Amino acid sequence: MLNNIRWLVPAKQGGDSSEDREIVVSSRVRLARNLSDFPFEIKLKVKDSERLLQLSRSVIERDCPGQYIDMKELTSLERESLLECHLISPAFLKMNKPTGLYLNEHGNISIMINEEDHLRIQGLTGGLNLTDISAQVFECEEEIGRDLEYAFDEAYGFLTSCPTNLGTGLRASVLLHLPGLVFTNEVEKVLRGALQIGMAVRGLYGEGSEIKGSLFQISNQHTLGLKEEELIQTIIKLTHMIVDVEMKARDAIFTKAKHEFEDKIFRSLAVLRSARVMSTDETLNLLSALRFGIGTGTIKDVSLDVVNEIMLVARPANIQLYFSQILEEHERDIRRAEYIRKKLGGNEK
Amino acid sequence: MLNNIRWLVPAKQGGDSSEDREIVVSSRVRLARNLSDFPFEIKLKVKDSERLLQLSRSVIERDCPGQYIDMKELTSLERESLLECHLISPAFLKMNKPTGLYLNEHGNISIMINEEDHLRIQGLTGGLNLTDISAQVFECEEEIGRDLEYAFDEAYGFLTSCPTNLGTGLRASVLLHLPGLVFTNEVEKVLRGALQIGMAVRGLYGEGSEIKGSLFQISNQHTLGLKEEELIQTIIKLTHMIVDVEMKARDAIFTKAKHEFEDKIFRSLAVLRSARVMSTDETLNLLSALRFGIGTGTIKDVSLDVVNEIMLVARPANIQLYFSQILEEHERDIRRAEYIRKKLGGNEK
Repeated sequence: MLNNIRWLVPAKQGGDSSEDREIVVSSRVRLARNLSDFPFEIKLKVKDSERLLQLSRSVIERDCPGQYIDMKELTSLERESLLECHLISPAFLKMNKPTGLYLNEHGNISIMINEEDHLRIQGLTGGLNLTDISAQVFECEEEIGRDLEYAFDEAYGFLTSCPTNLGTGLRASVLLHLPGLVFTNEVEKVLRGALQIGMAVRGLYGEGSEIKGSLFQISNQHTLGLKEEELIQTIIKLTHMIVDVEMKARDAIFTKAKHEFEDKIFRSLAVLRSARVMSTDETLNLLSALRFGIGTGTIKDVSLDVVNEIMLVARPANIQLYFSQILEEHERDIRRAEYIRKKLGGNEK
Repeated sequence: MLNNIRWLVPAKQGGDSSEDREIVVSSRVRLARNLSDFPFEIKLKVKDSERLLQLSRSVIERDCPGQYIDMKELTSLERESLLECHLISPAFLKMNKPTGLYLNEHGNISIMINEEDHLRIQGLTGGLNLTDISAQVFECEEEIGRDLEYAFDEAYGFLTSCPTNLGTGLRASVLLHLPGLVFTNEVEKVLRGALQIGMAVRGLYGEGSEIKGSLFQISNQHTLGLKEEELIQTIIKLTHMIVDVEMKARDAIFTKAKHEFEDKIFRSLAVLRSARVMSTDETLNLLSALRFGIGTGTIKDVSLDVVNEIMLVARPANIQLYFSQILEEHERDIRRAEYIRKKLGGNEK
């Protein structure tokens, strides 16, 4: 049934080490590009946006093979699902122009056509893999750039709809799981440090999303005045530093509150394996504890891949696509619990 | 190790039906008696109380064989444990006179010597067994009464230290588990009805104890003007009525909130089987849900006897006697969780 969500590819690619894969959930890079032959989105007529879509599509199809998704052919559930899978932006769903989405063969590169910028090329992968994924994104961007001319200025760099993306058009981010720092109440201090060096800190679903499940997205705020490589290196270094303090926080927990820690972990797994009704938020919080337990070796019979998959499939739209059924919230909570029990080998009596 | 608590006999005797045994946790009867040859407790000299103790002891030893416990030879942990096992009263621990406790062979009859009254003869058993246990208590009382003369008045009946016990000196009670009525918010209404017909409603540990784990103790308030048998029949009838409305509340839950009910039950069992730290209060609440699940047939692999045993052994003093160790509160919570996991075949990884 999972293939109902044909774009769902939980990030399985490993990071530098398994430790990183638990703490650094995923790495993401996106480039904003506009075509010099077309006005920016705000001045683009529908007729021209249609032409832009067809032109881009033919180029991308050749340069970056994969599947093309015509957004207007999707149900609202499927559109919501793409958002839950982090493959499109909330703004993309609100465009009142023809829009299209490209997914490469591995499902780790997606290109939105006619978002706020003409093209938004995104790479998403598991673990701390910024160097790798950004190389793939730039390769794709270059291929397309051979056939289509990007709006570029010698002084400013790449031109974008919104000045906050001017220059490199690059936004790189990592999704960090920091339960140790949350447990020891140090997470704010650490994240304040990130803000001070020009990073933005957000929740699981980016700008405006709440912090849940001890998950924090860290991304660059500035796109101007720094080379792409420097920017990515800065985030990688910062990530290593945060992983380091997270590990120290965990050591402190083991020394001072081992029983409370294990209690939380084992209770969470037990509830995931036994509940009959479960909300999205509770799922996220329990999965966070489970993830923590796997990362510390306390839980040995559940893999991170399963946790990553549940984190995606348990979302409100995805769980409906998974069961191929339109479900009201209460039914969703029941089916979600059923799905999770099945995935974690839970109690079915 | 359980035999460290030599007086711990979880009530295993069945009631009228297994349904009753889940809802009617236990039945209790106690008689207050004073010896006519001695002043009431408030005027009793220590010297005389010692004589009363020796005299009663020799009579009881002959009439009602079992074990004698000299209260002054117990540690404070053991004294607390007797209280947790419902074998003595809180007042008994505060007496500043020599006191002794008798337990019959089956552990279901206990006699406090030199409590507020000279003798307090108590019968305690599982399920709804008031007729049976009161017959045993009266038999014991009559045996003793052949050798010792009770203070008795033709007009008032048996004379007691406190006028609230005057007449029959009988207090009969049932401990009821009413999670259905608690769940549907109807329990107050039902218990108000009990108060109106002259019953007292209390928590698990009697007078002044909080209501916890959906457990309610119902007992007669009046000892004067009613025959013993009438009094016991009134409580039995009332109990049947309450069991009946509890069953109706459960039917309503199954119709309207089956998933929420099962969710609560399975989560509770999962947490009991997985927790690493657990307080007495949480234990009581989770056991209540588990008991509910067993009573409704939702949980099939745990017996009521195990629940009854955990309910007793998990108490603060009993759990220390179980492990033969003096334990601070935090250590107790850890060992309690360990004991419960073991008893319920929980997760030990």
